[in-house]
Amino acid sequence: MQENYVVIMAGGSGTRLWPKSRIKKPKQLYALINSDSMIKNTVDRLLPIVSKNNIYIATNTLQAKEISRELPKFKKNLIIEPYIRNTAPCIGLAAVMMKEKDAPVAFLPSDHYIGRPKQFQRTLKKAFEIARKDYLVLIGTRPTDADTGLGYIKSGKEISRGVYKVDKFIEKPDLANAKKFLASGIYFWNGGMFIGKAALILDLFKKHAPKIYSHLKKISDNPHALKEEYEKMENISFDYAVAEKAANIAVVPGDFAWSDIGNWGKLLEILANKNQENVVIGCEHYGVDTTGSLIHGTERLVATVGLKDIIVVDTPDVVLVCNKNRAQEVRTIVKKIKEQGKEKYL
Amino acid sequence: MQENYVVIMAGGSGTRLWPKSRIKKPKQLYALINSDSMIKNTVDRLLPIVSKNNIYIATNTLQAKEISRELPKFKKNLIIEPYIRNTAPCIGLAAVMMKEKDAPVAFLPSDHYIGRPKQFQRTLKKAFEIARKDYLVLIGTRPTDADTGLGYIKSGKEISRGVYKVDKFIEKPDLANAKKFLASGIYFWNGGMFIGKAALILDLFKKHAPKIYSHLKKISDNPHALKEEYEKMENISFDYAVAEKAANIAVVPGDFAWSDIGNWGKLLEILANKNQENVVIGCEHYGVDTTGSLIHGTERLVATVGLKDIIVVDTPDVVLVCNKNRAQEVRTIVKKIKEQGKEKYL
Repeated sequence: MQENYVVIMAGGSGTRLWPKSRIKKPKQLYALINSDSMIKNTVDRLLPIVSKNNIYIATNTLQAKEISRELPKFKKNLIIEPYIRNTAPCIGLAAVMMKEKDAPVAFLPSDHYIGRPKQFQRTLKKAFEIARKDYLVLIGTRPTDADTGLGYIKSGKEISRGVYKVDKFIEKPDLANAKKFLASGIYFWNGGMFIGKAALILDLFKKHAPKIYSHLKKISDNPHALKEEYEKMENISFDYAVAEKAANIAVVPGDFAWSDIGNWGKLLEILANKNQENVVIGCEHYGVDTTGSLIHGTERLVATVGLKDIIVVDTPDVVLVCNKNRAQEVRTIVKKIKEQGKEKYL
Repeated sequence: MQENYVVIMAGGSGTRLWPKSRIKKPKQLYALINSDSMIKNTVDRLLPIVSKNNIYIATNTLQAKEISRELPKFKKNLIIEPYIRNTAPCIGLAAVMMKEKDAPVAFLPSDHYIGRPKQFQRTLKKAFEIARKDYLVLIGTRPTDADTGLGYIKSGKEISRGVYKVDKFIEKPDLANAKKFLASGIYFWNGGMFIGKAALILDLFKKHAPKIYSHLKKISDNPHALKEEYEKMENISFDYAVAEKAANIAVVPGDFAWSDIGNWGKLLEILANKNQENVVIGCEHYGVDTTGSLIHGTERLVATVGLKDIIVVDTPDVVLVCNKNRAQEVRTIVKKIKEQGKEKYL
């Protein structure tokens, strides 16, 4: 069996599922879909195709403890970022640490939902194959609706069966374009899953993000410089810094019921597939005439009367009540809290 | 100054403001309108016209401790019912304990809102005067809308200036009748405020509720029989058991901005008069596009997005989210909880 590696990127401090997801305990550490945490689901989905020792978890100092507690068997495979940065520094650092290995590395999010793991595994295997031929490979997911909140990848020429050159990247389109993309069959959602050999990735940094590369080089030459150099790196995504500028990128499309669970409304959509009634997680719920709602609680009882399409998230120190169709505006609340210096709630 | 007495009936176990109001700590013990508890407001409203020593508080064994804590100066004036019963046994017991006094006693709820205390005091003084002439007197409040959730008193002949004979009692009318009552000017809301001498009240029990009277008589003859006899008394209101059957009842109408705060929606109406925006009590609230809502919390932060006319009540062990116009259905939740044996939440 040929060697493949995975780096699960688990250093995000996402607040889109606030108030459940917090800076010190972001959504990958919660059981949102089933009784296991999102990151546990992510690992379990990889183990059938990647050996345990080859799975690394990139996180940061704030979250490392919680990650170790959640995945004790991966304690030795933690890559600890000294500061919270976006995916470019994270992928760069991991590439530095794996620079000796002449094998593909998949950089994967830790907190995404994948409804059909077998299809995902098949897609990832194909991506590893292509990456072995010195491509930077993206996994694209076939759109199931005209989502205007996601980035898209336009596929071009077929390179080999079911693998395409990336023609271009499109950030969050308007609805008209999103509808066109959905109908076309050649646009895919960009879920931020990158596969490539470490050396290739470092080359791409050198070419397209020379400033970040200079910091990576210093870390590579002197591991003790990690903290100092990591702090200086730009807080930018790998898409922006590298992938969108690079030539010779391939996309392997998959159809594995994917969602980034970008807000509470999306979580409700995923879970409501299984249950057209209300979705109740983590608490007792007594409802009168309550429909299409998500009740996500902890130890408290949640009671509802006369509600439709409402999301209630009850945590030890915050209660969120949100119209399902406005779930993306939770970030406005988070912004307000930040502005008023109430970081204890974030 | 002629002697007058008051018995504040504070033994209710109302669940209409659940989950804030609980069996062991019902709504009279909470600060709902201002920074003082409802019962503290009730006492303060009486002190200008009734001497402190003449104010008694009827409660039950479950709540006596909390009442003493809230009103330490009235510890010696507690009337403790050994079981939770409706107003007939409560008024009967208090009448037994005051049977020697030839002075009017006002039996008043502990948890009602009165927006214009001066008008209320004027009305109560007039009621005391009439009761001194051996009438059973009710205070009626002038309706301000066609409420179908309240009982009404139809006034008859004028006995003296601004005092009328009670023509009849009407329990919760339909909307058409409620509208007629509102327009007529001769119907008043029955707020459960009764004024009469103890001897007269005991006479009325003897005549109209002989079974209850027989228990009261035994308690009167032998105070040690209280527990045994009180338990046997019917759980019935004074209205049903006595007032509605009695002749020679007077009503003194008042116009003092009264509400029984019968549900969360009513509390919102009272408080929203002062503030057309959301009403936030007891907690921090961050809202995005939230209007006409009541946020009643404790120590937790409450965040809301895209809500209109919603009531959020956050307590240490229960969160209620309720459409303002469905607030009366909170009792359905309470019923469900009871049925499922989850009394810890009541």
